[in-house]
Amino acid sequence: MKRLVGLDWGTSSLRAALFDGQGQVVQERELPRGILTVATGEFPVVFHEACGDWLRPDTMALLGGMVGSRQGWLEAPYCPCPAGFADIAARLQWLEPGRIAIVPGLNCETQGVPDVMRGEETQVFGALQLLGLEHGLFVLPGTHSKWVRVAAGRIESFRTFMTGEFYALLRWHSILARTLPAADGELDATAFLRGVEHALATGNLLHSAFSARTLSLLDRLAADAMPSYLSGLVIGEELRLQQLAALREPLVVIGSPGLAQRYELALRALDVPVRSAGSQATWRGLWAIAQTLGDIA
Amino acid sequence: MKRLVGLDWGTSSLRAALFDGQGQVVQERELPRGILTVATGEFPVVFHEACGDWLRPDTMALLGGMVGSRQGWLEAPYCPCPAGFADIAARLQWLEPGRIAIVPGLNCETQGVPDVMRGEETQVFGALQLLGLEHGLFVLPGTHSKWVRVAAGRIESFRTFMTGEFYALLRWHSILARTLPAADGELDATAFLRGVEHALATGNLLHSAFSARTLSLLDRLAADAMPSYLSGLVIGEELRLQQLAALREPLVVIGSPGLAQRYELALRALDVPVRSAGSQATWRGLWAIAQTLGDIA
Repeated sequence: MKRLVGLDWGTSSLRAALFDGQGQVVQERELPRGILTVATGEFPVVFHEACGDWLRPDTMALLGGMVGSRQGWLEAPYCPCPAGFADIAARLQWLEPGRIAIVPGLNCETQGVPDVMRGEETQVFGALQLLGLEHGLFVLPGTHSKWVRVAAGRIESFRTFMTGEFYALLRWHSILARTLPAADGELDATAFLRGVEHALATGNLLHSAFSARTLSLLDRLAADAMPSYLSGLVIGEELRLQQLAALREPLVVIGSPGLAQRYELALRALDVPVRSAGSQATWRGLWAIAQTLGDIA
Repeated sequence: MKRLVGLDWGTSSLRAALFDGQGQVVQERELPRGILTVATGEFPVVFHEACGDWLRPDTMALLGGMVGSRQGWLEAPYCPCPAGFADIAARLQWLEPGRIAIVPGLNCETQGVPDVMRGEETQVFGALQLLGLEHGLFVLPGTHSKWVRVAAGRIESFRTFMTGEFYALLRWHSILARTLPAADGELDATAFLRGVEHALATGNLLHSAFSARTLSLLDRLAADAMPSYLSGLVIGEELRLQQLAALREPLVVIGSPGLAQRYELALRALDVPVRSAGSQATWRGLWAIAQTLGDIA
């Protein structure tokens, strides 16, 4: 029987967790050593910096996230959908056999066009366990939001939406930036929901985004409310394409509280039932994958 | 009877034309003095630099474009839609009565959300005269593309799409920029049309734009073809919202040859009949507005 160390090693940050024999996290750390800060060849050093003191002969380490990308420690080829715990476990990319492995991301193909994720699959698996679910629709909001369909405990398909990135582009680099305040400030729920509503009514972000310009030009929305309105426009555009009316169980939102709150606000306004899972989903997912290997306790 | 000088004074450039008594342009100039380069109070100086030698006691000057915005020479309040030549002529913002006037832009309201244009209305009026039309659907591609509906010689309504700006944001500032070549190169028609098709099939730019990332990651589209593919994605997204199947006469594309060519390529692939009007549309539009004042020859 082995004990588990989990790493959530993304583009801009690195989190590490030490598990006890029941899958509870007993220690957790965060380092500002996302893969973009790590030079080729330096990954083993940073790995030991993050969790070297936790490693014993009986320890297994599972690393999820962008660490398995071409810019990471070692490229872990994507696992095709549908994929469950067992598929992922069978395709772990071992750095040291039986000791250190990278969790592969998933790919999925729709009408000849691929989509990919790295890290979110682990969060979804964790949420399935935390909430006791076997199927449903999951959203992981972020720079690149993922919408994930699960059936019989396996990820069937998913789609990426560049929502957070579009927000940042429009917020900081577009003509809209000229009339926006220097900081985003608190969320203005009314302006946010007005943005969601306009996005849904318009059906096209190329057009709806211009309303942030005209409402400002014609003094119809205060500058302080504009970041919230713009956030509503992009999140509304993301929600527009989901078949939310056809949902038979609550949509699961997995993410940090601030961003999840915005999605929940918009979804409640659309009468969509919502459940939440937080940052523990990643650790629970790594634990679940490790469990399928059979010798973790 | 007066003679006419026309100015197309936009954000980044200034064009001037001297007309003969039949409305033909006999001299034309371009200066790198868009309104963003002109300090408050400096507009009269730049105006005289552009066309002072053409001004005689019997000359009238009409100025169209962003020169009538809040950042321009003098703010010319928007003229509400529907608006035709006579409406515009009645709302000219005179700098010197009977001598120098700014052509107002238009605004139009859809479900409580305003849209605006400055300069494009003059191009549409010019195209109506050049092509002998009284009604139809017009597109003016650009940083902010305008789709304009004309009935009985008047602009009924219009919508703005931030297509060119989104292209630039994605091309130069997003994660996609990392795998794109340093220059755009020649248009790759196959990649462009593939982008148009994917945009139409997907129905959401937040999602379809990510395909430029995955096709690159998985080596399914060459880096050199990527700018054309991305251009197809944004133009396809713009076309998606137009009711092109319901058109009973050709769509009129008004713009520079390079950009108009892309729209025509996409529209022909969608079996939409197209007519074109070029940069002369602005001059013809200013001439038409001047004509309605009654004493130009």
